[in-house]
Amino acid sequence: MAALLITSALALACSAAAQLQGRGFPDCDNGPLKDNTVCDTTADPLTRATALINAFTLQEKLNNTGSTSPGVPRLGLPAYTWWQEALHGVASSPGVNFSDSGPFRYATSFPQPILMGAAFDDDLIRDVATVISTEARAFNNDKRAGLDFWTPNINPFKDSRWGRGQETPGEDPYHLSSYVAALIEGLQGSPDDKYKRVVATCKHFVAYDMESWNGNFRYQFDAQVSSQDLVEYYMPPFQQCARDSNVGAFMCSYNALNGVPTCADPWLLQTVLREKWNWTSEQQWVTSDCDAVQNVFLPHDYASTREEAAALSLKAGTDINCGTYYQDHLPAAYDQGLINTTDLDISLIRQYSSLVRLGYFDGLAVPYRNLTWNDVSTPHAQQLAYKAAAEGITLLKNDGVLPLTISNGTSIALIGDWANATDQMLGNYDGIPPFFHSPLYAAQQTGATVNFATGPGGQGDPTTDHWLPVWAAANKSDVIIYAGGIDNSVESEGMDRVSLTWTGAQLDMIGQLAMYGKPVIVLQMGGGQIDSSPLVNNPNVSALIWGGYPGQDGGVALFDIIRGITAPAGRLPTTQYPAKYISQVPMTDMTLRPNSTTGSPGRTYIWYNENAVFPYGLGLHYTNFTAAIKPSFPSTYDSSSSNSGSASYDISTLTSNCTATYKDLCPFTSFSVSITNTGEIMSDYVTLGFLAGIHGPAPHPNKRLVSYQRLHNITAGSSQTAWLNLTLGSLARVDEMGNKVLYPGDYALLVDTQPLAMGNFTLTGTELMLDEWPQAPASRSRSGSRPTDYFVGGYGSEQIMG
Amino acid sequence: MAALLITSALALACSAAAQLQGRGFPDCDNGPLKDNTVCDTTADPLTRATALINAFTLQEKLNNTGSTSPGVPRLGLPAYTWWQEALHGVASSPGVNFSDSGPFRYATSFPQPILMGAAFDDDLIRDVATVISTEARAFNNDKRAGLDFWTPNINPFKDSRWGRGQETPGEDPYHLSSYVAALIEGLQGSPDDKYKRVVATCKHFVAYDMESWNGNFRYQFDAQVSSQDLVEYYMPPFQQCARDSNVGAFMCSYNALNGVPTCADPWLLQTVLREKWNWTSEQQWVTSDCDAVQNVFLPHDYASTREEAAALSLKAGTDINCGTYYQDHLPAAYDQGLINTTDLDISLIRQYSSLVRLGYFDGLAVPYRNLTWNDVSTPHAQQLAYKAAAEGITLLKNDGVLPLTISNGTSIALIGDWANATDQMLGNYDGIPPFFHSPLYAAQQTGATVNFATGPGGQGDPTTDHWLPVWAAANKSDVIIYAGGIDNSVESEGMDRVSLTWTGAQLDMIGQLAMYGKPVIVLQMGGGQIDSSPLVNNPNVSALIWGGYPGQDGGVALFDIIRGITAPAGRLPTTQYPAKYISQVPMTDMTLRPNSTTGSPGRTYIWYNENAVFPYGLGLHYTNFTAAIKPSFPSTYDSSSSNSGSASYDISTLTSNCTATYKDLCPFTSFSVSITNTGEIMSDYVTLGFLAGIHGPAPHPNKRLVSYQRLHNITAGSSQTAWLNLTLGSLARVDEMGNKVLYPGDYALLVDTQPLAMGNFTLTGTELMLDEWPQAPASRSRSGSRPTDYFVGGYGSEQIMG
Repeated sequence: MAALLITSALALACSAAAQLQGRGFPDCDNGPLKDNTVCDTTADPLTRATALINAFTLQEKLNNTGSTSPGVPRLGLPAYTWWQEALHGVASSPGVNFSDSGPFRYATSFPQPILMGAAFDDDLIRDVATVISTEARAFNNDKRAGLDFWTPNINPFKDSRWGRGQETPGEDPYHLSSYVAALIEGLQGSPDDKYKRVVATCKHFVAYDMESWNGNFRYQFDAQVSSQDLVEYYMPPFQQCARDSNVGAFMCSYNALNGVPTCADPWLLQTVLREKWNWTSEQQWVTSDCDAVQNVFLPHDYASTREEAAALSLKAGTDINCGTYYQDHLPAAYDQGLINTTDLDISLIRQYSSLVRLGYFDGLAVPYRNLTWNDVSTPHAQQLAYKAAAEGITLLKNDGVLPLTISNGTSIALIGDWANATDQMLGNYDGIPPFFHSPLYAAQQTGATVNFATGPGGQGDPTTDHWLPVWAAANKSDVIIYAGGIDNSVESEGMDRVSLTWTGAQLDMIGQLAMYGKPVIVLQMGGGQIDSSPLVNNPNVSALIWGGYPGQDGGVALFDIIRGITAPAGRLPTTQYPAKYISQVPMTDMTLRPNSTTGSPGRTYIWYNENAVFPYGLGLHYTNFTAAIKPSFPSTYDSSSSNSGSASYDISTLTSNCTATYKDLCPFTSFSVSITNTGEIMSDYVTLGFLAGIHGPAPHPNKRLVSYQRLHNITAGSSQTAWLNLTLGSLARVDEMGNKVLYPGDYALLVDTQPLAMGNFTLTGTELMLDEWPQAPASRSRSGSRPTDYFVGGYGSEQIMG
Repeated sequence: MAALLITSALALACSAAAQLQGRGFPDCDNGPLKDNTVCDTTADPLTRATALINAFTLQEKLNNTGSTSPGVPRLGLPAYTWWQEALHGVASSPGVNFSDSGPFRYATSFPQPILMGAAFDDDLIRDVATVISTEARAFNNDKRAGLDFWTPNINPFKDSRWGRGQETPGEDPYHLSSYVAALIEGLQGSPDDKYKRVVATCKHFVAYDMESWNGNFRYQFDAQVSSQDLVEYYMPPFQQCARDSNVGAFMCSYNALNGVPTCADPWLLQTVLREKWNWTSEQQWVTSDCDAVQNVFLPHDYASTREEAAALSLKAGTDINCGTYYQDHLPAAYDQGLINTTDLDISLIRQYSSLVRLGYFDGLAVPYRNLTWNDVSTPHAQQLAYKAAAEGITLLKNDGVLPLTISNGTSIALIGDWANATDQMLGNYDGIPPFFHSPLYAAQQTGATVNFATGPGGQGDPTTDHWLPVWAAANKSDVIIYAGGIDNSVESEGMDRVSLTWTGAQLDMIGQLAMYGKPVIVLQMGGGQIDSSPLVNNPNVSALIWGGYPGQDGGVALFDIIRGITAPAGRLPTTQYPAKYISQVPMTDMTLRPNSTTGSPGRTYIWYNENAVFPYGLGLHYTNFTAAIKPSFPSTYDSSSSNSGSASYDISTLTSNCTATYKDLCPFTSFSVSITNTGEIMSDYVTLGFLAGIHGPAPHPNKRLVSYQRLHNITAGSSQTAWLNLTLGSLARVDEMGNKVLYPGDYALLVDTQPLAMGNFTLTGTELMLDEWPQAPASRSRSGSRPTDYFVGGYGSEQIMG
């Protein structure tokens, strides 16, 4: 043991020394590698990376298995940090180094994904991601960032309590898949580009959506998920990432899935990810979530030794360990014969072929190398940060007070702990923005007299000592705007919410403000939805706007919506449940369907069988819209089409001409939807297409999103056409084995949450499997002995209060 | 409504203006009050206070109902802040103002009560509290503090998860009562003194011991408590405060008790507190916890309007509202006829008679007025802070490595996030200490070579990136000391714990340290107990010490224990449950007894029917003790005494000569216990006396603490005698109605947790009620309509997941 510890310590000492050399690119012109094939730009990435790794000694291989990679000084291979963050802009993280002053002291900070999701605008997301990858490359050129970014978080946000739900675009798996396709294109560039812009990392694979709930921790939680729920709900965004968008990296999660920690699960990382989804074309890599490999040992207690935890993870397909656990324990695992050099080579080749694809070895031939500080936070980027916020902000209630005319003579009471927000507006995984335009800043720009007072925060702490200025502000103002709700003090990484209610203090203050006989506009901020029914039901609360985490220009975006400079068109990307919801479903319950035995009313708008406070997809406008739906049938398909939108299709005919590798991607049809603005104010409109009807295995979902398109600037009285493109996969349901199947039955396409139009059609013939799901091995549990010498009780497979 | 709001706002504006005048004493020599009876030092406090309040206008009365009291400038009555904190030393709080430099820039910071409770030394507590009140008076003389202090927190600490359990002395109601008697004497002085030193405030009345558990919040929780549990467990420390120690103030709590928010409960505040316990001799006052009056309205939803919430609370007997809710809403309550001037007068007279008793109006005649900065943080106080820590620190495991010889040649690896602790050592409700003597500081003072490395914190965040220096430190050291556990990042006000386990990261690090073949000593820090069974069961972990929050000199106290300069004699003041405990009992379950229906194994050592990791009262020594118990029977009682410690008593005889107002206080007998140090090291010894046996209503408790005495400096081979003084109350049990009853049956007195001696006796005759409990009104719920205009759903009486 002592000898092994010393080996390990030496390896790490080397690592630390290498780090001091700083970052940079390998020198393929004059460096020691210049004659290595890795420097041959005519060779393919896999060949180049293989040549590089072949030059490593065993010790050098063992050294380069963690997120802080020392490189190989002997070979002139620089140190590299595999850990950059960029959730909604280049973000503070181990691999990102903002300057204290001068160039690179900030980067554009977009809204949190939950608000960008509410925009339902994939073009916007692609633009945002392109700005982020541009700024990331500029930081990289200044040796202030690496080239891989551990974003997006694409786990579906099924439970409002989840502290990290704010990092995701919402609760619907189709929405997330469509969003992430646009995002990856913006981050990585086109798959055909010779050089990736940056590498994106889809996380957290898979079924990770709980931080800490009633004694259940993300580091030890074993998510019990049926094949049906897995394929139908938890997997689609990851399938999009791997199979369809060719993302450069994945991150396995802290939790276990059906007994196996995801980072040590060869079925998940090899059978599903690499084989089923063909995620092998570029030797992409998987990183562990930070110290998730340690968690395979403790607290998962899945491996009986630390060396076994490291070896199982490496062999399962976790190529990089965030942390030092691989560097600490793979040397002993090697000595014990638990891994061999081939295991190390596979992962190292994946790492370095990824860097080859990023142009790491290709010097100034890489087009992105000319990006500089001048390309960071450009006017275009700043405008896009504003636009992303304005498009997502969602109007939930309006008694006619909005849009509000604000003139120089208007006096506004701006109240609440979000009124003068700075960091609050960014949420988590934030960088340093060029500015914070708070609601207070925005109000002051309008020329109105602004009477500002802070309010109680989201935690419900005693605060009435500070309420006096609130009444003074309200007394002397024409209109009252309250900006509150929740923030990262109650929802964040490591912390799930334990309540869906507004705090009593906030409700009391708003209730008193509503008694002044003045217009009262409430801004409900934060990522997870709060039960706002007390505000809905109070006739003296004039308007309610959900603002999420709106980013650097969030205050201006909010005030432009309030004033009607921008018309609101955002849609709720998650269901707003009544407060009692959290007493109906434990966070540990991974099932989606209602369950009369457990009392679960179901999860997400797809299955929830009670009344939401505000349903998924809701968002009011300052104008009115009508919709007319028209089928547009490709001539290759038989159908008995009619103008009424009713049609019938034979399953075998539908599939007979489908030659794609993945049959779910074959087109079904594109419905054109004509949207007419019948009101008086120009506005965007989000065309949401849901599918309902009786087909496939019972129970049948309420409906499910199958397509969406945001239309822009529809002027009063005019129409625009949205195309809702459905594939065979849009029609398919998932059976209990996880297979995707086309079923005969009745289908209805609904336009909008409270439908403006509907089209019915029928599928006939016999059911047909579009995609077969690879079953996990029957026995997933391990028989390895517990490390009882120092660990007894406490953790383990027992679910606590769940 | 508008008119009322303006009235209220004006009143508060006056309040704010008055605050600016700063603090001071009324001028009874030349001020406007000089001819008012309040300045007549020959009159009694009640007469004096009444005369003062009679001089107030209605508006002035309404102004002075909150914790920030503007006084009456017209009368020369200064502003006064009713809110000083001093949980373990004069503490930062609204009424306490530390200087930035020079005098009064710090005060002595003692250990958290949970560690001082572990000393089981009431003389120590009295000394500590005397230092605190001395320093408080010095601060007051410099106009840096008021004279009332909102301490102690004396709710029994029955659930290890409770974030504020650290503020209490432990889980046993007898222990808490004995402790708090000593504490109040130190804070307030003798009841016979003309002037109180300061006013203490027993909180939180009653059944408050949860912050936030799974959607249940302290502000809205309705504790369902039987009369039996209430009298037996939740009430005793408060009865001690009010009935027996004449504390100057009480604080009602956030929670409701059986449907009624405590601050609005006339049964609790009038029938029990003031009538049953005769807490009226000095017109003592009750303050609300901060904004608990607001919580009566929201979220308790107990009053239908804000005015009603304020009026109900004032009339129930809540004299001061922490916050501004009284000042905001009592004016309208008065206008609506919900309160009258008599209601205001009662509370105001209570406030100001309390200040009279503190000498507030008596100028330099008050002896404490000569205390200055020279009386703060004296050598005596500093030594006492050290002693309090050293006496409480508890040895849980020792394979013989302790006491540890440390010489100049010794090298120590000092590892963990507590190793270089500063604020961590204070816990919450802290002030500014004169210094922070961390474990690292203390280790360095020994002359040893100290290799320091920080470790993972109590939250389980990913950390292996920082582990490298740990292995380096361990490699080059002779002995490894790990200082970790938990701290205020996981247990604090507003935050209960959700796990009783050590984090996986800490267990992993300790487990690896234990493989170096060197002595490993673990310091388990923090207030709530953690399941340390992995450390107990690891033979390579040499020793385990619980250190709580040890205060300003905590590191030195810990190292003196480690080195044997002080011998450990602390005892666990709470049970150390196995980690699974939290899945057996919801925090909302207020019952104490095991329950086969709910699966609860019972709460506290009194009822818990499974195996604790470490039982209540456990604490190892560096020596061995034996005990010999001898009955010492007062001659007035018949008994068939015998030397073997067996005796029989007739209940009617026992009580016939008992003429005290409170029969439970009548003496039963004093047992003398001779404690002999049979080992080789001088040591303190805590003599714990438990009572067990079959008597009274089933189920019967395992045992219950009835007396304790700490013996000091018992030299090797010598003996000292402890006296365990039992009253009739010690023998009594509580029936289902809450009455205290003497029952015939078998009794056993056990000395120590793992008994060193036992004495048996019998009570004969018929059961006899010692104390009758006043029953709460049959219907406690109110029929007031919900304020549905702005509040619907979410809160209310529904328990969430509990």
